[in-house]
Amino acid sequence: MAKKERILDISWPLKEGTTSYKNKSFLSLIPSKIFQRDKVRETRISLSSHTGTHIDAPAHFIEDGKTIDQEPLTKLIGNAKVLDLTNIRKSITAKDLQKQKFKKGQIILLKTKNSLHNEDDLFDQEFIYLTASAAKFLKQKGVKAVGIDYLGIERNDKNHLTHKILLHANIPIIEGLRLSDTKAKEYYFVCLPLAIQGTDAAPARAILIENHKL
Amino acid sequence: MAKKERILDISWPLKEGTTSYKNKSFLSLIPSKIFQRDKVRETRISLSSHTGTHIDAPAHFIEDGKTIDQEPLTKLIGNAKVLDLTNIRKSITAKDLQKQKFKKGQIILLKTKNSLHNEDDLFDQEFIYLTASAAKFLKQKGVKAVGIDYLGIERNDKNHLTHKILLHANIPIIEGLRLSDTKAKEYYFVCLPLAIQGTDAAPARAILIENHKL
Repeated sequence: MAKKERILDISWPLKEGTTSYKNKSFLSLIPSKIFQRDKVRETRISLSSHTGTHIDAPAHFIEDGKTIDQEPLTKLIGNAKVLDLTNIRKSITAKDLQKQKFKKGQIILLKTKNSLHNEDDLFDQEFIYLTASAAKFLKQKGVKAVGIDYLGIERNDKNHLTHKILLHANIPIIEGLRLSDTKAKEYYFVCLPLAIQGTDAAPARAILIENHKL
Repeated sequence: MAKKERILDISWPLKEGTTSYKNKSFLSLIPSKIFQRDKVRETRISLSSHTGTHIDAPAHFIEDGKTIDQEPLTKLIGNAKVLDLTNIRKSITAKDLQKQKFKKGQIILLKTKNSLHNEDDLFDQEFIYLTASAAKFLKQKGVKAVGIDYLGIERNDKNHLTHKILLHANIPIIEGLRLSDTKAKEYYFVCLPLAIQGTDAAPARAILIENHKL
């Protein structure tokens, strides 16, 4: 008999004070209707397109790149593999990935020690990132999308090569995942960004479904 | 052989000028980094918790009701049935629903002539809504969640009974769906709200998967 499906939420919780990239952005949740006065609650939400779990579209770094609404959702849904890279101290290189097995068309989720951070820690300037060589390697392997467990996927590269290699290949980048509860195995992945039109990125919710027909 | 999966996006497109409930709210997308100056694009997003496709949590209308993060995602994922109610001229009553077949634990999506509206039309004050009697009927049938193709599910009821009947039963309400491309049949439904903590509602993306293992 098929095992019972289980849903794992791998999204960054969004509240005021949530970690933001280089501590430069902010999220605000301001009540616009309050129960005691209005007998109804409503909230005004203000955030960056790069707050919490989000998808970077090509338009983030490429002048004529596709915007988030032009990326098919099929790229963010399907078979995904979590790679256990928690032993890495600085950056994920092509060599680190050569040891891993994965399939063409798979969504690759990079689990590193970034996942040890709390959701409202100050931004870690020394976060584990993906090198440009590793991005090239993933592109050559024909992966469908790449996710990482921090609010950035590269650091201190003024040319933003890691981003550009993936985005020029129309490989969406999923930043701000929370992978501490995941194992190094295959899951069914669903990541749905808000249906925002014409932007460089969009906040998203991401889940893994365990024991799902792949 | 299994038919190929197909993803149907049933979310309200989010852009400035998108229809808002009673034309009272607004969505803004303001570039915070622009390509010509910064060689990167980023966007500041401001919206209501009830903009576009969104989930109403019990806390919307119930003083001690659960907030959106306290609702399990399993309620928003799974077998769903689209009911064709496009012939209805004013409101969906219990009598209209008695003619329909559905299963316990199913997510019910109400397709009405609301779906004929364009995404940026002015708000239609005469939209098709769900009566309190119909909400009671759905609750008695044990449905898991209820979705409708407009930015509200009730109208002109100062007691907000339709909302309260569903939310007291912890049945999430999915408002702002776009169902014009759907048929009156079963689908696999996935609706993922942003992981906002402690609020009355959250913007969401919703899809139907056709030919998916149900």
